[in-house]
Amino acid sequence: MKKLTVGIAGVGRIGKIHLENLARKFSQVTVKTAVDAMEAGREYARSLGVENVTDNIDDLINDPEIDAVIVCSPTDTHAEYTMAAARAGKHVFCEKPLDLSLDTVKEVLAVVEEAGVKLMIGFNRRFDGNFMKIRELVEAGKVGEPHILKITSRDPGPPPVSYVKVSGGMFMDMTIHDFDMARFIVGSEVKEVYATAGCMVDPEIGEAGDVDTALVTLTFENGAMGVIDNSRKAVYGYDQRVEVFGTEGMANTDNNHYDNHRFYGAGGINAALPLNFFMDRYIDAYYNEMEAFVTALEKGEDMPVSGKDGIMSMAIGLAAKKSVEEKRPVAVSEILG
Amino acid sequence: MKKLTVGIAGVGRIGKIHLENLARKFSQVTVKTAVDAMEAGREYARSLGVENVTDNIDDLINDPEIDAVIVCSPTDTHAEYTMAAARAGKHVFCEKPLDLSLDTVKEVLAVVEEAGVKLMIGFNRRFDGNFMKIRELVEAGKVGEPHILKITSRDPGPPPVSYVKVSGGMFMDMTIHDFDMARFIVGSEVKEVYATAGCMVDPEIGEAGDVDTALVTLTFENGAMGVIDNSRKAVYGYDQRVEVFGTEGMANTDNNHYDNHRFYGAGGINAALPLNFFMDRYIDAYYNEMEAFVTALEKGEDMPVSGKDGIMSMAIGLAAKKSVEEKRPVAVSEILG
Amino acid sequence: MKKLTVGIAGVGRIGKIHLENLARKFSQVTVKTAVDAMEAGREYARSLGVENVTDNIDDLINDPEIDAVIVCSPTDTHAEYTMAAARAGKHVFCEKPLDLSLDTVKEVLAVVEEAGVKLMIGFNRRFDGNFMKIRELVEAGKVGEPHILKITSRDPGPPPVSYVKVSGGMFMDMTIHDFDMARFIVGSEVKEVYATAGCMVDPEIGEAGDVDTALVTLTFENGAMGVIDNSRKAVYGYDQRVEVFGTEGMANTDNNHYDNHRFYGAGGINAALPLNFFMDRYIDAYYNEMEAFVTALEKGEDMPVSGKDGIMSMAIGLAAKKSVEEKRPVAVSEILG
Amino acid sequence: MKKLTVGIAGVGRIGKIHLENLARKFSQVTVKTAVDAMEAGREYARSLGVENVTDNIDDLINDPEIDAVIVCSPTDTHAEYTMAAARAGKHVFCEKPLDLSLDTVKEVLAVVEEAGVKLMIGFNRRFDGNFMKIRELVEAGKVGEPHILKITSRDPGPPPVSYVKVSGGMFMDMTIHDFDMARFIVGSEVKEVYATAGCMVDPEIGEAGDVDTALVTLTFENGAMGVIDNSRKAVYGYDQRVEVFGTEGMANTDNNHYDNHRFYGAGGINAALPLNFFMDRYIDAYYNEMEAFVTALEKGEDMPVSGKDGIMSMAIGLAAKKSVEEKRPVAVSEILG
Repeated sequence: MKKLTVGIAGVGRIGKIHLENLARKFSQVTVKTAVDAMEAGREYARSLGVENVTDNIDDLINDPEIDAVIVCSPTDTHAEYTMAAARAGKHVFCEKPLDLSLDTVKEVLAVVEEAGVKLMIGFNRRFDGNFMKIRELVEAGKVGEPHILKITSRDPGPPPVSYVKVSGGMFMDMTIHDFDMARFIVGSEVKEVYATAGCMVDPEIGEAGDVDTALVTLTFENGAMGVIDNSRKAVYGYDQRVEVFGTEGMANTDNNHYDNHRFYGAGGINAALPLNFFMDRYIDAYYNEMEAFVTALEKGEDMPVSGKDGIMSMAIGLAAKKSVEEKRPVAVSEILG
Repeated sequence: MKKLTVGIAGVGRIGKIHLENLARKFSQVTVKTAVDAMEAGREYARSLGVENVTDNIDDLINDPEIDAVIVCSPTDTHAEYTMAAARAGKHVFCEKPLDLSLDTVKEVLAVVEEAGVKLMIGFNRRFDGNFMKIRELVEAGKVGEPHILKITSRDPGPPPVSYVKVSGGMFMDMTIHDFDMARFIVGSEVKEVYATAGCMVDPEIGEAGDVDTALVTLTFENGAMGVIDNSRKAVYGYDQRVEVFGTEGMANTDNNHYDNHRFYGAGGINAALPLNFFMDRYIDAYYNEMEAFVTALEKGEDMPVSGKDGIMSMAIGLAAKKSVEEKRPVAVSEILG
Repeated sequence: MKKLTVGIAGVGRIGKIHLENLARKFSQVTVKTAVDAMEAGREYARSLGVENVTDNIDDLINDPEIDAVIVCSPTDTHAEYTMAAARAGKHVFCEKPLDLSLDTVKEVLAVVEEAGVKLMIGFNRRFDGNFMKIRELVEAGKVGEPHILKITSRDPGPPPVSYVKVSGGMFMDMTIHDFDMARFIVGSEVKEVYATAGCMVDPEIGEAGDVDTALVTLTFENGAMGVIDNSRKAVYGYDQRVEVFGTEGMANTDNNHYDNHRFYGAGGINAALPLNFFMDRYIDAYYNEMEAFVTALEKGEDMPVSGKDGIMSMAIGLAAKKSVEEKRPVAVSEILG
Repeated sequence: MKKLTVGIAGVGRIGKIHLENLARKFSQVTVKTAVDAMEAGREYARSLGVENVTDNIDDLINDPEIDAVIVCSPTDTHAEYTMAAARAGKHVFCEKPLDLSLDTVKEVLAVVEEAGVKLMIGFNRRFDGNFMKIRELVEAGKVGEPHILKITSRDPGPPPVSYVKVSGGMFMDMTIHDFDMARFIVGSEVKEVYATAGCMVDPEIGEAGDVDTALVTLTFENGAMGVIDNSRKAVYGYDQRVEVFGTEGMANTDNNHYDNHRFYGAGGINAALPLNFFMDRYIDAYYNEMEAFVTALEKGEDMPVSGKDGIMSMAIGLAAKKSVEEKRPVAVSEILG
């Protein structure tokens, strides 16, 4: 069988993970080209034996041998690179979000569709073993008809304010993962959003026009209700849990912890904290995600996370933002137009 | 020290628990009189050596030796008995709710205040060891400033529709416990309520004009946010959990289970379900609650659950109802007037 | 149906529990007589409405109306009272141990057998919900053929040395419960014992000729192996766990804790300790045990814990003691003769 | 700083893990040479860019540029390769056991000592995060003086009988890891061993002269007692737990599971099984182990697992075997001579 030839645009924090996985763990893949503006990224690619290491994206886009492009470059290049690759007839895996503008995202999806290539969006959490298990239980009907979904999503600490300012806001930057998770677990679209939010962690975030703590209520088309709670700062670590309740039962999942010891002393029982960093928590998810992309390409199947998934999560995020501003529930259809 | 002399009005399901506790476990209390319309209740009181067993409430109200009255009779007698006892100069412990009408409750509280007696409302869950521990952690500052409160409250099965019709609706009958819990844990008043709800368990409940599944978002005066999720039917039992998240940490509590075994077989690990019945789950809470009432009387201290606690939870319930009807957040002040 | 008329000998710490249960919770039982040498015990019995409260055991033994006797008096009266009651044609529930001498125990059992009455030994832990569940899983074949049994049994603190001196030693006083548990869970007799033990908690215990820490290996007749670990002092509370491993799986049980909260702070996760006191841990077991006794009498069934159970656990204890002294495995048959 | 140049002998199941770790994750290490008798192993080495890939061990031993050798070849070559490497002045990391003969092991250690090189034995479990945490708690004095150690070690299934026959027996092949763990956790030497064992899983194992189920009691020089329970077949997966109890508390560790979901249905609560395979469970341990080896070489420090560790675990294993044969406790000094 012919090997799949891929190129990667961006060898930064997440790019390195994808590149190492592709180069070392998928015998059916050849990483021919790696593009990065920084020498450190290029050096990393060379150490993995990538044939063509460059700072010029055109070397990748114009190479007819390349079947698929992995876009891990900065967010503001996602739309451009994805469209360029699609127009060149290449399949694309793109880290989320495609863009912060809904119009641009729609444009990208139109280009992708016209090109007839496949596009997968990097919602990596869908590929976490815990969340996959919850989805599997829902899909298999073990939970029955889902009635209530609860997602806890708290970061160990807020990002720098400089990042907050260009991030699109907490709902678009952080909660967007939870919106995707909500749709993934329940298997139904979100119809309406009501959000309350505030700046309770860091006043500078508020001054930058953003929030850092939120409760978002979701109503799904199938009648289920959901709630997401977010905080930018959990002193005990990265808190990522899901619970789904239905007519036949309830399934939930705890965090992954540093170890599973218990210490029983005169003062109580102590245990280890949850992992503190998203790359520790989701390291296996990144691998599983890339495997899903490669497998879908090999088998000619639909991508497990589509462009539509990208656009729907964005729309929910924009609805949440509007709900906070206008202090009322907002229909997602208001946003999608 | 002089013993406390009490009388009990109503020896039904919960009255029996209070009567047995008072008669057997508080050496400083004499239960002089028990009133019940049914012979079964009176027989139970006699078996505990109650001196005066009767079906006439006046025997209790008019007895000058009785210091305090425990009102466990049907809900529609709560206001009348509480006022009568207060006017007769007796302290009152009254099962929740004082009444389904906010105006009547206000009237009862006015009578109690004028009489200068003490009134405690039977929000028993505040005295559950798990929830007391969570409150203790919040009060001691371990959690820091509370930001997010989450209450899960699901019944093992819906009540009969005949009961639903006279119950005042799910928010007033079931969620009212959670509203009280929310105020108790966070230690701040609820300012605003947004509720989504539906009839997902039993269509007859919907036909009776009530809901059986809900997500209620609370905004507290101190800025914290809270969410309560309710279902009238959890197939796995009575699900009562609380989580509070703040600047210094997070505290949560699981259910109480039938036992704590684990079975590891080829097909997975199995454990016992949560207790299925509120009287099993809260049996110790009922004792602790009565102890708190007796202790407050002995020491002349304020009641741990006051008439105001009764009125505030009702107001939140009415706000939740209005929020569902009008599909918008409702300020509790709108209800309280 | 005729009520069961019982008398109780000894209204001390455990006698009070049994008396309260019998007087309040078994409508089919009348406690006619209570005997105690101390006024406190007698006062307690009076408060429960016992008709005949006395310090004279003969008032109980010679009363032809009494069907059964509950022996909770000091250990050195167990054999005498049990034999007297049996000879008077009364069934007996006797707290463990029947006696510290194997010969005396054999004599008691002979008297009981000749009298044709029933005798139950108070191995209360068999009636703890957790351990009953483990036994149930073994009995139902879920665990398959049992191969390995592990019992953890650690006290929160050592008894006074004065008590140690008259207790018969740790194996006879403390581990005897675990020997009974081992036989109960596995459902097979212990064939051989190897024990290592030392005085590691309190040197005075060693000076009194006893040990306070031990590991006891058991070999069962059905081929299973078991290990009991004991300590007289666990700073974190009363530690009582069982694990059984077999061809089809493994079942284990954790302790009961003060509450089930978890606190997640910057320094780790904290939880509540196990209950610290055997009467808290086993309060339900005492009730279940008495219910089993009463039910067996009512139905004319065999006692769930027989005189043989008493003698076998003693023999294992004596074998363990000999094993430590002689540093070799000892067959239980060596002890039983 | 000069890079460390290493060679690896054996690129089989465990060799691949070490090779990948060394080649990809340690920038301070160059893997110059890989030796394997099989083309598959050599192909794997080539794919990682190893310069010199060969089937001739002498290419490795005789290369003066190689600082250290990783021995992952079949057990019967361990002693020979380790001695050859040592004589050539190279440090050695050798998978356990060095040999099945105590005399040979002694000879190897003498050669290593004379050569003045460092030797580390691959007891990988010491580098598992859970067990490291337990050791850390003991070392930091949190547990106080250790009194009781409990190790559960059960395999998901027995090896082929052909392997059993050449393995040296369960104590030397499987329990040897637990003997090392016992010494590691308690931090004291084992003085005496008493073992009971049987063939309960597979009669063919018994026919091959081996056991498959065992309880081993250890007495440590510091007075602590320990027990190891082994089974060759746990239907629920690979069961690897440790508990240590001391004067100040107790620390234990659970298994690692496939995921951490809980499903609550009408029939009970279900959870995922422990990982079923040692390479899944210990994948991080293999990395940590190699890091410890590399770090010790770089810093010129003592190896964290020494040749003495290899010999002591063997001696305990031989004592356990003798204890079963002679049905008595056996001093380790009897074996060491």
